[in-house]
Order: sequence, then structure tokens, then C-alpha cells
Amino acid sequence: MTQGITFLDAGQAVDCFLLIKTATKSIAVNGKPYLTLIFQDKSGEIEAKLWDASDGEVQKYQAETIVKVSGEIQNYRGRNQLKIKQIRPSTEQDAVQIQDFVQSAPLEKTEMADTITQFIFEMKNPNIQRITRHLLKKYHQPFLEFPAATKNHHEFVSGLAYHVVSMLKLAKAIADLYPSLDRDLLYAGVILHDLGKVIELSGPISTTYTVEGNLLGHITIMVNEIGKAADELQIQGEEVTVLQHIILSHHGKLEWGSPKLPLIKEAEILHYIDNIDAKMNMLDRTLERTKPGEFSEKVFALDHRSFYKPSFHK
Amino acid sequence: MTQGITFLDAGQAVDCFLLIKTATKSIAVNGKPYLTLIFQDKSGEIEAKLWDASDGEVQKYQAETIVKVSGEIQNYRGRNQLKIKQIRPSTEQDAVQIQDFVQSAPLEKTEMADTITQFIFEMKNPNIQRITRHLLKKYHQPFLEFPAATKNHHEFVSGLAYHVVSMLKLAKAIADLYPSLDRDLLYAGVILHDLGKVIELSGPISTTYTVEGNLLGHITIMVNEIGKAADELQIQGEEVTVLQHIILSHHGKLEWGSPKLPLIKEAEILHYIDNIDAKMNMLDRTLERTKPGEFSEKVFALDHRSFYKPSFHK
Amino acid sequence: MTQGITFLDAGQAVDCFLLIKTATKSIAVNGKPYLTLIFQDKSGEIEAKLWDASDGEVQKYQAETIVKVSGEIQNYRGRNQLKIKQIRPSTEQDAVQIQDFVQSAPLEKTEMADTITQFIFEMKNPNIQRITRHLLKKYHQPFLEFPAATKNHHEFVSGLAYHVVSMLKLAKAIADLYPSLDRDLLYAGVILHDLGKVIELSGPISTTYTVEGNLLGHITIMVNEIGKAADELQIQGEEVTVLQHIILSHHGKLEWGSPKLPLIKEAEILHYIDNIDAKMNMLDRTLERTKPGEFSEKVFALDHRSFYKPSFHK
Amino acid sequence: MTQGITFLDAGQAVDCFLLIKTATKSIAVNGKPYLTLIFQDKSGEIEAKLWDASDGEVQKYQAETIVKVSGEIQNYRGRNQLKIKQIRPSTEQDAVQIQDFVQSAPLEKTEMADTITQFIFEMKNPNIQRITRHLLKKYHQPFLEFPAATKNHHEFVSGLAYHVVSMLKLAKAIADLYPSLDRDLLYAGVILHDLGKVIELSGPISTTYTVEGNLLGHITIMVNEIGKAADELQIQGEEVTVLQHIILSHHGKLEWGSPKLPLIKEAEILHYIDNIDAKMNMLDRTLERTKPGEFSEKVFALDHRSFYKPSFHK
Amino acid sequence: MTQGITFLDAGQAVDCFLLIKTATKSIAVNGKPYLTLIFQDKSGEIEAKLWDASDGEVQKYQAETIVKVSGEIQNYRGRNQLKIKQIRPSTEQDAVQIQDFVQSAPLEKTEMADTITQFIFEMKNPNIQRITRHLLKKYHQPFLEFPAATKNHHEFVSGLAYHVVSMLKLAKAIADLYPSLDRDLLYAGVILHDLGKVIELSGPISTTYTVEGNLLGHITIMVNEIGKAADELQIQGEEVTVLQHIILSHHGKLEWGSPKLPLIKEAEILHYIDNIDAKMNMLDRTLERTKPGEFSEKVFALDHRSFYKPSFHK
Amino acid sequence: MTQGITFLDAGQAVDCFLLIKTATKSIAVNGKPYLTLIFQDKSGEIEAKLWDASDGEVQKYQAETIVKVSGEIQNYRGRNQLKIKQIRPSTEQDAVQIQDFVQSAPLEKTEMADTITQFIFEMKNPNIQRITRHLLKKYHQPFLEFPAATKNHHEFVSGLAYHVVSMLKLAKAIADLYPSLDRDLLYAGVILHDLGKVIELSGPISTTYTVEGNLLGHITIMVNEIGKAADELQIQGEEVTVLQHIILSHHGKLEWGSPKLPLIKEAEILHYIDNIDAKMNMLDRTLERTKPGEFSEKVFALDHRSFYKPSFHK
Repeated sequence: MTQGITFLDAGQAVDCFLLIKTATKSIAVNGKPYLTLIFQDKSGEIEAKLWDASDGEVQKYQAETIVKVSGEIQNYRGRNQLKIKQIRPSTEQDAVQIQDFVQSAPLEKTEMADTITQFIFEMKNPNIQRITRHLLKKYHQPFLEFPAATKNHHEFVSGLAYHVVSMLKLAKAIADLYPSLDRDLLYAGVILHDLGKVIELSGPISTTYTVEGNLLGHITIMVNEIGKAADELQIQGEEVTVLQHIILSHHGKLEWGSPKLPLIKEAEILHYIDNIDAKMNMLDRTLERTKPGEFSEKVFALDHRSFYKPSFHK
Repeated sequence: MTQGITFLDAGQAVDCFLLIKTATKSIAVNGKPYLTLIFQDKSGEIEAKLWDASDGEVQKYQAETIVKVSGEIQNYRGRNQLKIKQIRPSTEQDAVQIQDFVQSAPLEKTEMADTITQFIFEMKNPNIQRITRHLLKKYHQPFLEFPAATKNHHEFVSGLAYHVVSMLKLAKAIADLYPSLDRDLLYAGVILHDLGKVIELSGPISTTYTVEGNLLGHITIMVNEIGKAADELQIQGEEVTVLQHIILSHHGKLEWGSPKLPLIKEAEILHYIDNIDAKMNMLDRTLERTKPGEFSEKVFALDHRSFYKPSFHK
Repeated sequence: MTQGITFLDAGQAVDCFLLIKTATKSIAVNGKPYLTLIFQDKSGEIEAKLWDASDGEVQKYQAETIVKVSGEIQNYRGRNQLKIKQIRPSTEQDAVQIQDFVQSAPLEKTEMADTITQFIFEMKNPNIQRITRHLLKKYHQPFLEFPAATKNHHEFVSGLAYHVVSMLKLAKAIADLYPSLDRDLLYAGVILHDLGKVIELSGPISTTYTVEGNLLGHITIMVNEIGKAADELQIQGEEVTVLQHIILSHHGKLEWGSPKLPLIKEAEILHYIDNIDAKMNMLDRTLERTKPGEFSEKVFALDHRSFYKPSFHK
Repeated sequence: MTQGITFLDAGQAVDCFLLIKTATKSIAVNGKPYLTLIFQDKSGEIEAKLWDASDGEVQKYQAETIVKVSGEIQNYRGRNQLKIKQIRPSTEQDAVQIQDFVQSAPLEKTEMADTITQFIFEMKNPNIQRITRHLLKKYHQPFLEFPAATKNHHEFVSGLAYHVVSMLKLAKAIADLYPSLDRDLLYAGVILHDLGKVIELSGPISTTYTVEGNLLGHITIMVNEIGKAADELQIQGEEVTVLQHIILSHHGKLEWGSPKLPLIKEAEILHYIDNIDAKMNMLDRTLERTKPGEFSEKVFALDHRSFYKPSFHK
Repeated sequence: MTQGITFLDAGQAVDCFLLIKTATKSIAVNGKPYLTLIFQDKSGEIEAKLWDASDGEVQKYQAETIVKVSGEIQNYRGRNQLKIKQIRPSTEQDAVQIQDFVQSAPLEKTEMADTITQFIFEMKNPNIQRITRHLLKKYHQPFLEFPAATKNHHEFVSGLAYHVVSMLKLAKAIADLYPSLDRDLLYAGVILHDLGKVIELSGPISTTYTVEGNLLGHITIMVNEIGKAADELQIQGEEVTVLQHIILSHHGKLEWGSPKLPLIKEAEILHYIDNIDAKMNMLDRTLERTKPGEFSEKVFALDHRSFYKPSFHK
Repeated sequence: MTQGITFLDAGQAVDCFLLIKTATKSIAVNGKPYLTLIFQDKSGEIEAKLWDASDGEVQKYQAETIVKVSGEIQNYRGRNQLKIKQIRPSTEQDAVQIQDFVQSAPLEKTEMADTITQFIFEMKNPNIQRITRHLLKKYHQPFLEFPAATKNHHEFVSGLAYHVVSMLKLAKAIADLYPSLDRDLLYAGVILHDLGKVIELSGPISTTYTVEGNLLGHITIMVNEIGKAADELQIQGEEVTVLQHIILSHHGKLEWGSPKLPLIKEAEILHYIDNIDAKMNMLDRTLERTKPGEFSEKVFALDHRSFYKPSFHK
């Protein structure tokens, strides 16, 4: 089981440690309680039912508990489930820990931090450079640990930083081909565009929206932060308004939550770069589980399309 | 001519002072320059052509100049024009001044300021009260002079304050009928909702959008201002986020420029109050010029509808 | 249990009388029949299952039966259910009656009738007054008993009259602030706007749509009724067409079922008044069940939004 | 000039009688008045300018005057204009009359009336038959003279009756192929569907919308008329509601002015029949003026499409 | 049971042969496997559950197996189910065969082929005639057996040919009434419009989409085929492009999968004819199961509308 | 005047050679003919009027004539015009030629051809490589000369090839960053995506749409061409369908003319690459004419937005 729980087919036996992501108690048709458990490992999630759950079991099998499970994969209405045969909580002897079951970015945090620092270092406009550095420093710790979203793309530990690093590389490649682009604006836009998520979201694991996140959203949060940073750093040039505009408009459409459309070239391009990196992440992870000559599961954030993996791809 | 230039019918003679709002030089089909003048008085605007304009005339008849004009109203493609017979700039002896030709709110500035102060005084939540008072004080002067918009509704001197006063009265009437409403939030929302326009717009006369207005918009500007006010006043309760949300969402739809839909009852109601007062202003001013038994001009911001004035209305 | 069945939390015991709103027989996975019961009291509804229901039980527990139930509230997929421990039909000795379990308007019918009569009495235009009085008299009884809708807002006994009374008060408050409004048209519009629902809907309890309601709708029904009333009363002025237009257009948009947009000022304002009263009703009833610092259930007719009750609200 | 004014090409000389459809006085750039005249004959319309028009000429050349014109066709911005060389009002000796210049249906009124009577005669359901006959009789005269619309399709004298006759033939052909259709409903629907236009529109020539037409529309007008007819004829069966529904829903979509979608099979089919006959009329009249191998003018009511006439069509 | 399984009401006993359309194994709440079976006969489909299914039963009751079933119709959440009492696979002695349980067109294949041949024979333009005949011949066999769609309309054996025959008759009736139509284009368009479905779909029974169908669609497939046919037949006139355009545009809107709107009269009319025949098929089949005075099930492809069968229809 | 006619400001004198792009004869208000001339040089276009044009002048100054003009730039309604003082046709002695006045790609045709050949050379899948090479060879000449569009972006001589070369470089940069991408599909998609324009459009200069272009569009044309190429080259693998799908879907949305949404990863990415290169071309050319601190003209294909050039940009 090198690849993990989501790569198994119906009929395969399971005998491994898994992390309980959520545990929900319900009443079965026969009047007895049962638990719906969502297990996860680094490859993703799978659902299971624990029938006739005693009060003790309900107590034992809560979210963020690691368990040893044996059972079998079954297909139910087109989706895999795990049929539990045996289950027990892990013990100290098992020597397993939560981070072994949580997906995280494929790069180390220090490596990502170094890359981003290098991009900031290359900036020529001191106002843009100082604001970017100030805000990144202010939210350094959560920036390196938060996901980029609660679902759809980069929804894993350090997903936010990983998304930013990928986008920086793409921004550089595009700026090399279209030399009229202002690299300072583009890099600062990439680094700050989703930084408000460290306030919008609750944390790196079991991520939900905070009240401030729901009422204001990460875009407004970061636009405010740029304003405060400029005040603290006593920066007054047009760069402040321009940076705020780039963050404000990066969703690209009013109905996608940007109250202004991009009105600066680098704002328009930032929107495209964000889009490409997010979609590549979704597509790669979807097609990873699709066999050549078959259609994938429907991808929610890509208009529910099923993508085809050509049979001449391996 | 008690009512002003926009109430005259085709064929009527004109002999009065008018303010030049804009003057645009063009080349006629015969190759000679002419001026397109937009005149205004308190009742509104009318277009005129000054044919074969000499360089001296082009110099003399610029925007914000008061002139004495005699001529005749003519109808051209369904709209009135003024055919100029004689024109001269006003002199000191004429004793006319710009404010005589500019439409402004029907209430005095001090009266409006007093009314608003009274509403703030009645607030019970000190955090909401202090932030509102702080921001109103900070922008007191322009708030009392700016229009509420460049066109469509309340687009006159002190239109912003007048719109706020009308909305406060309507908010009070509604809160009297629906006692579950939080009056503090509602009044603060009304007072602050368009205050960002003092930065978004250029000034009370010949109003245009500033760069900051175009790139950020009055909603984002005021949400930032609330954040800064709270910092300066060292206020930290949830009231800050809630006030920001109410301003953020008051346009009521993403496609109308609010990046979040109203998620608080008072935010939803503020949107309705704003809408009613703006629409009543448009409708009253449109129907003022419509005869009983006839349809009005098309109203741009009301889906280009022509409204009917029933023949049993006087 | 002063507040009623919908205010209980999971884990609380239940021992009270309830009205069966609907009873549906189904076959369980073990092949045995069971009943899904929707109970209601004045506070609202709750679902329950009666497992292994015998033929006698199916016979006994039908819609509009009052029962004595003891059991416990349980949470199932985020919604409360009632787990039945004991159930029996009520007897004469229990001295309970259907109206004790049905939600109705917070005002008495006679009080509402008086208020509306007073508004009609104040009308100055005799044509408008006579048509309004004629139609109200014609449908007096059902008008005072019907709900204003089958769901979303004012969906309770006498909801229609209560909605009209609230709107009349709001119309009066608005007309006081905007004196150009024709109060006769506004009040007549409010009184008649949903009166067609007494034909569109089946009755005050277990309300469904009639065939005529489905095929024509309450708007068309009432427009026809106004025409017939004018014929019977031998009224021929433009008021007839104008009243018909105001009813026709009060949904405000073609896609919301008005075949003409409002083209008369009072028609436009009627639409806003209707909207505010309906939305206030929804919001109040939703937030009544929401704790400070939490988000409400999603409100279907408000774009599925969850509303936030600020933590500084009690 | 057998085909008429709209079939001439730029450069061709004109010397014929034409009817003035509209005459609009304007002021030229040189300050002198001129007239914009829309001439018409049976083939359609053409615009012309009468420069330096004296007061006498303005008086002489008003709408509904027949004139003798000589001049030349010129192309101005892709549209033909008539350059006037000589013009004079017609005299009695010229022996020309208005109906020679007005387009009308290609069938005689009596012939159309007979066809429709025959369809009514074939109806089997007495309620449907009596209502249809009653309403057709009530509006017999204008029904045979009115256009079916002010523009887009069948916008000529007797266009309404002609549209109905074509639709009846099409309805019969479709009912022959799909025998489950109720012919009575279908024929009654066809005959009554646009009959409200005799109240919505002002008359057969220079057609505009009446106040009642603007405020209620022909659909609501006719639904009311059906209700009144049923009352007068003391008919009470479900046929009345069903007929009203078919008229109400025949535009097929809420945003096209039907407050209910078709919910009866014949209502759905009536919408298709109406659509086909209207579109065939537009397409035939557009392509009549298009040469093989070329694209037509843009057709407003067909999404502004330019239609291609294949080069192998003659 | 003359009419078939879909015409039975809840409570009626069942004892007949049925074809298994699909069989899906699931795990019940008690942990035991069960089968969800979709049975079909010529009248349509019904669902059933086979509880506690042994491995042998899972093996025996697979798709495309004919079984003898006895049981009872039950209503579950508003839809009928079949409660199985006894079930066994059919044997040779039962003398039943798959085609007895599969719905197919009400006309014989040879009869349909003859009708279409006759229409081709009547074509006057040799280029259009040759291309049409060539393609029909190339795909003769599947054309006569395929359904016209996987759901919504004509989704039965030979549904494609039956749809074409109905449309040809309708096209002829319309061309008789509107003589300007080019019958050759219209008939060729009808015959070829959905012919690409023989490549887009998998076959006449248990029909799904092929990879080519998913990636290209029947419209593009047939446009390519017309191009290749013209090459093979060495036809070069504009007829080729025009025929391709008519197929390309026959869905009538970009969002319905036509990359070009109809720009030729016959293309526009083909779209209407296709629409009428598809909708009549849906409506007839839906209303066949609806009692007079009741509303039908919701029809997915007609905006989820429920259609009403008037109570005066039998 | 190194930069060309479009870079001059109002008031500047003009004395240079220009190419007449279009010449339109009209009748002035004084009844005399005049010419509206659109002049062009490599920098773009400017309008001018030639008043009181004699028949000889109309004859002399036709499209594609080079003229010597002196005059002055004037601003008319916010757009520059050229006021002609003197004009004469160029003579042989002037030694000017059309290509000096026509904008073309900034790279040489041979250089672009070499680059593309190199990309094809790098392909690994022989089926994809052979089809791409075959089609490029078939349309080699027009491919190197056609514009990529008639307006909006790359609407200049060799614009198509230049667009392809830029996209190939961008595709390579993206494939370097996201190694899961199939470079063969991506490069073939880039090279072929707009190749159908050599049939859809009329030619490199004064470009319009052909009949085939209007009726089928470049997408359908190229999908057909791929099918024919595969037949000629006797290639049958899934690569053919996949390549056709990538071209078919590259507009990304049904309403933008792709009858299928992208269902293959490289199809989705091709759409983004096409979009970025087109938008960068529009933005660069628009902002080239915009001064720092100002807003640009509205860009039609970018939602009519005016873009801002920050004042800290030079």
C-alpha cells in the first residue's frame, strides 16, 4: 500500500494506520447509534461506517485520532468505502504521528521561504519591496503552514506557500517572454494575493472559515493590511494604491468576489497566473487517479467536467 | 422663467444668465471651428452651439464662466437645444455668482449636520458611536459638500449629506416598525455607507473619479478607513468587523461591486434603504418634468424605463 | 417547553402533545413498514420515524391527528429529529384542539380588519376606494385566514392579512417621508397585491396550489378581478388600468412573474415595500433560532445565505 | 419601378408618387431649418432630406401627405437615401390615394374572415367554440385591419389576421401529424393569442402603443376579455381557465412577457407555431432583398444575424 | 397487464417476465449485500431491491437477464417500486426473448427506410441528393437501429430513424405552406442532422457515449463526414459548405452546442422542426401516464415543468 | 515623425506619405460630395475629410493609393483627425511602396518558419508530428502572411505566425514548470489552433470573412482538415480524435464558439496560452499610447476597460 488509501480498488484488503478526520454519530434505521468516520492518509480520504457503536466507542473514535484498521474496500454508488472488520486506537508503541497522515506540500518550508526571499530581494522599487517584505514577515509562520484553500486546489498543509512559489516561477517565465511587464508589481502581487487567507481561514488542519473570513474575505483583509503597512512604514507613493488594486482585482470578475476588475496590466496577468497554477494543481491530482483511455471523476471547480486521459498516455 | 432653463418648451425665448458647464471646440463641415456649450442653471442643463467661433471667443467661453445669453429654445431629435442669438461674458456689474447656477440640496448644510449629529448622539454602543463620530469628523467638510454620485441620483452639491439625512429618517421609520433591528448598526451604516465618495470623487462641482476612486472604489476606501479609525481609537470588539462588513456589502450583489453579500440583517436592510432613497430621488426628478397622461424620458438607472404619470395626477 | 418543539436541543427529553402535519408510509431495509411523521406545534415542525408500524398504527397516525408523544431530540445530519419512545392519539379528556398547534399571525383578525378598513376610509379617490373596498368585501373571510405563501415568509394562518397590515404601516411611513407619493394608489396596491392568493392557494392549513393557481397565478387572477369589479361598479376612469398595472407589475421583474415592469412610481415603491416586509419576516424568524456569535441556517429565498448574529447582540 | 422604392440601387433615378410617413424639422449646421422625410410605398420606406426648408414647405410636407418626387438614390453609410431634386404635393388630378402606398396583407379581408370562420365551425367543444366566436365577433373590424406588431413581423395593414390565418393552416398540418393534439384548444389559441393587440395598439397605420397597451399588454388584456366573455356567456367549465392559460403562456418564457410557462401541451405547441410563422415572415421579407451569394441586412429580432442566400438559389 | 409495468398503481400484484436493465450490488445498513435491480419491459422501467442477496444470486441476476418475478407495486417517496416476493431467471421453456422487453419505434425499419428513400428520390439538386444518399447508405444499418438519444426523447431502438421520418413529414407540411423554402436543403438537413449519433453513441441498447462522441460530438462528426463524402464523390459546389453549415447550426444556439448560429433560412427552420418533434415525443409519453385533471411528473428537458392534462380531456 | 501618425498630438503639423485604407463618398449638408479617408502607416490609422471633392478627386483617392499629405492634427470628440491642407497622389519619383505603410509582425517570416519547424522537429509522437507537419506544409504560404484576426489582437500582416511563435515559447516555458504536460499535444495544438483562419479570412490586407468562414468558422474548418490529413497519411490512432478535440475546444466555452469544452488537460492549457498571448498583445499596444498617470482608451475585447498606467512607470 505504498500509494495510500485512495489508490485501492474495490475488493482489496486493508490493514493499516489511518487518521480520523471527522466522526459523526447517527441513529440507524434499527434505532441503534453508529459512527460515520472519514479516514485520511497522505493520499486523501475514505469513508467508513462503524455500526452499533457503543458509548465508549463514540468516545474513543473522535476526529484527529489515529487508529489501526483492517477491513476491505467496497464500492457503494460509484464511490469507494472502507468496510471495517477490526479497529483500535493507536498506542504509543505504534509510533505513529499525525503528520504522517496529513498531506503537505512537496517542498520543505525553508526551501519555499528561501525562494520567496530571493524574489523579494530582486525587486527594484523600494516601496513595493518594503511593503511586501513587511507583510510576509508579519505573517511568516502561518503563511508557511496554511493551505491555499479549504477545497478544490492546494488544500493541504503549506499549500499556500507552495502555490505562491509555483506562481512566482510562472510569473518569472512570463515576464521573460513579455518584457513590458513590471516584475516588482507581478512578484508582489503573487506573494500577497492570498496572504489574507491566514486570517480568513482557521488553520492548517481541519480548515474552516473564521467569522472575519466570512464577513470580509481574504481580499479585503489583505487590502486593509497593505494600507496599514504603508502607514507604519510611512510610505505614501502611488505604489500603495496600485498594490491594493492588484490584490483587490485578482479574482478577475465582480461575480468571483473582486469589487473592481483589473485595470492595470500586471493585475490582469496576475489573475491568469493564479488561474493556471490552480487549475494545473486540480488537473494533475485528478488525472493521477485516472487510467489511460478513461474519463476522470467530475472536477467541481472546472464546471464539473470529466477529463479524458488519452490512451496513448501512460 | 422662475423654474429655470430645463422647464422651457421649444419656441420660447431666452434672455438670462447661465453658467458654462463644459465647452468643446470642434470643426464644422465647412472647416470652421465652433463651440458646443453645455449651459446650466439650478434646474439642470441645456446644450447650445456657437458657430464660427473666433479664437477670442474660444478663449472667452470656457467652463465655469457665467454668460448672458439671449436666444430661443429649439427641439432637435427630441431634445431641447438653445439657439444662441447673443452672448457675452458676465461682468462684475451683473453681480452674479457661480452658486446661483449650481443645483444643491434643498436643506442647509448646518441643518443636515445637526440632524446627523443627533442620530449619532442616540447611539448606545460606544464602539459604533465612536468610530462613526471619528470618521464623520475627519471628513466633515467634504461630506457636507460632495454629491452622492456623478449622475443618476443626488448628483448635486451637498447631495451626499442630503441622501444620508433622508436615509436616516427612513431607517428610523423602519426601525420603529421592526423593533428587532439594531439602530446603532443601521444608523452607522447609513452615515458611513457612501462616505468613501469624498475620496473616490474629485469634488462638489464638475465631479469626476479620482485615480484612487477608479482603482479602489468608495466601498474599499471606507472599509480601510474604518480599520484605521479602530486602530487609532484602540477599539477591538467585533463591532469593527461588523461595521466593515455592512459597508462592504451594501451594494447587495457581487455584480454591483460588493465583494460579499449582506450576511447581517442590518446590512440587508441598509441596502434596501439606500435603494429606496436613490430611486425616489430619480423618480421625483423625472416625473417633475412629465405631464399627467404622458410617459417620462427613459430613466437610465431604472432599466431605461419610461414612467407614466396617471392623468388623474395633477 | 414554553417556546415549542423547534427550540429544543439534541439530548433534551420531550413529553407533550403535537399535531401530525404529514404521515408517509415507507418500507424499511428490513422489509417492514414504517411511518415518517412530521409533527408541528406553534413554533414549527420536527420529523420523527415510527418503526415497524402495524396496519393499526398506520391507520391511527394520519395527518391532522393530535398525539401525545414522549421521546428525545436527536441530531441527524445537522437537523433535529424526534426519537419516539411512546406515542398515543389524544383523547377528549386531553382537551387539546388543532388551533393550539398551528402557527398564526400575532394579531387578532378583527384588529387587522379594523386597521385595513381605516386605511381604506382615508382614501380620497372614490374610484380607487370603491374597487378596493368591493374586492376586500368579496373575499373578506379567506383574506383574514389565508397564509401569504406556502413557504418562505408569512406561511401561517392569517399570514396574508398580517403581511398586508405590516406593509400598510410601512407604506404610510414612507409616504410621510416622500410626500409626492399617491397614498391611495399605494394603499390600494398593498391591500390587493396578494389578494389573488385566496384563489391561487387551497386554504389556510396544509396549503397547496389550486389548478387555477398553477395555470394563472395570483397576479393574473387579481388583475381579472379588478376588471370585473370595475364593470360591476360601473367605474371607467384610468384608475382601473392603473390599479391593474400596479398589481401586474408588483413582482418587479419579468423573471419573477410580472409580465410588465413597474411603469408608475407607486408600482415601483409597492415592490420595495413588499420585499422589505417579506425579508424582515424571514430574517426575524431565522435569527430567532440563531445564537449570538453564530451563523444561521441557510435561508432559501435569500440566495441560500447564512446570516450572522453579532456576538454583541443578545 | 414595378417593385417599389426599396428595390432601387444607388445611382438609379426616381420619379414617382410617395407617401410621407414622418416629417421631422431640424436645424442644420448652417443654422437653417431642414426636413427629414421618411417616404413610403408598398415596398417599404426610404429617407430623404429637404434642405433649407421654408416655413411654407414645413407646412406642406407633413405626415400622411402624398407627394410627387424626382431625384436619385444615393448610398449613405451603407443605407440608401433619396436625394430630392424636385418635390410637390399631389393634387386631385394625380388620382392617387393613401392605400396605394401602404403595405397590406396579400389576402383579402373577406377571404381571411371566411377561413377563420371555417376553423371555428369545425370546433367540437361548445365552450371553447362560443368564447372564441364571441370575442372574434366583438373585435371583428379592428381584427381584420390591425397589424400583428409595430415592427419585426407582419407590421402591415391586416397583418394580424394574415398571421392568424397562416398559423391556423400550420396548426392544422401539425395536428394532422400529431393526432394527440386537441384541435379546439389549438385553433382557439391561434385565433385569440394576439387579439388583445386591437387594444394594445393604436390602429392600422402609424401604429403606436396605447396607454393601456403599455401598462397591461395584449396578453393580460385578452386574458381579461376571456374572463368577461365567459361571464357574459355564462360558461363555467375548466375550459375558461385553460384558454386563459394558453393565451397567458404563449410567449413561452417569463422574460418574454408570459407570467406563466406553458403547462398544457397545446400551449407549448402554440408558442412554436407562433414563432415559426413570425420568423418565416421576417426571413422571407429580408431575403427577398438579398441577392444569391450575399448576406442580408442584420435582422433585429433574430439576434441581429445576417442571413446568407446560397449562390445556387435564384 | 396489457399496458406494462409502468402503468400499474401501488397495491397491484405483479406476476410476469421482466428484463434486468441494470443490477447494482450494495451493502445494507445491517452489513449484508443486496441488489438494486432496474427491470424493464416495453412500457418502461421500475426499480426493485433484492435483500440479503447471496453470491449466487448476485451472479444470476445481472443486466440483460430475463427473469420471472412476482410481487407487489409499492409507492416510495412518490415513485413506484416493485417489492419482490419471488424471482427466478427465465428458462428456454419460457420462450421469451430480449426484443419482447425493449421499447422500439412504432414503425417497421423497412417502412421507415422506404419513406426516407422516397424523400431523397424527390430531391432536385444532384449534389445535395448524392451526398445525402451516400451517407445514408454508408451508415444504413446503425441508422435504422440506433436511438435518437440516451434519454429525454426517442431513446428507444430505431428512435433515430423514427425521429427522422416524423421530421420529414413535418418538413414537407411546412414547405407546402411556405413555398420559399428549399426542400432539398430541408430534407437533407433532416436526414443528416443526427446521423453522427451512430458514431457518438455506443449502440441501440444500454446506450452510452463513445470516446469520440464525448470528445467531438455528433455535430462535428457529421460535418466531417459530409466533407469526406464530397471529396469521395468529387463534388465541389457551395452545396457542401451549405449542408455542413445546416448540420453545424441545427442546435440553434452556441450554448446548446452549435458553434455557429443558423445563417441560412432552412437551417433556422430545421432547428424548429427538430424541436417540435422532440418535444411532442416527450409530451405525448409524459401525458400518456397522466390522468385528466392532474399534473404530470416533471419533464427534465422542458425546464422541469409539470404539465396539466385538462379534466375535459379523456 | 519617427513613430508614425498615431503618435502625434492635436496641433502638430503633418507632412508625409500615407496609404489610403478606405475612401467613402458622402453628401455634405450643403449638398456637395466629400470623401471620408482613413489613412494608415505602420503605426496605425487616422481619419480625414476631403471637402467639396470633385469627381476627379473621388477617382484619384481610392483605397490602396499612397498619397502625400500636409495638414494638421485636430481633436474631434476625443479622437484625433487629420485636417488636410494639401494632398496629391504619390508618383514613381517618390519611391514609396505599400509595404512601407502596412503594419507587420516584428519578426521575419523565415525566422518564424524556422522556429516553428524546430518545435515540430522536437515532437516524439510520430502521428501528431506527421499531421502537424502535413497541414503546416499545405498552408505554408498563407500561414506566414495572414493576420491572426481582423481586429482586437495580432491584426497585422504575418500576425498569425507571430501569435503562434509567441505561444510556442510560452507553451515551452509552462511545460518546463509543469512536467506532466504532453508537449507534443501542446505544440501541435498551438500550431494548428488558428490555422483554419487562412480559409476563414480573405487575405493579409483589408481582411474580411469569406463565405466559408462565416458559415463554418476556422475551428470547424481545421477539425475537418485534420480528419482529411489523417486519411491521406493513413493515420488511425486516437491521436487524430484527440488533436481534433483540442482544436475544437480551444475557445474554452460554448458561447465563445467551441462546441465542446476542453476535456483533455492540454486542451485546457492551450486555451489559457492563447488567451495570455492575445491579451498581452492588446495590452501592450494599448498602453504604448498611454502616458504614465493616465487611463488608456477603452479596450473592446477586455470588457471595454480603460487600463491605468501607473505614474511610476515611465
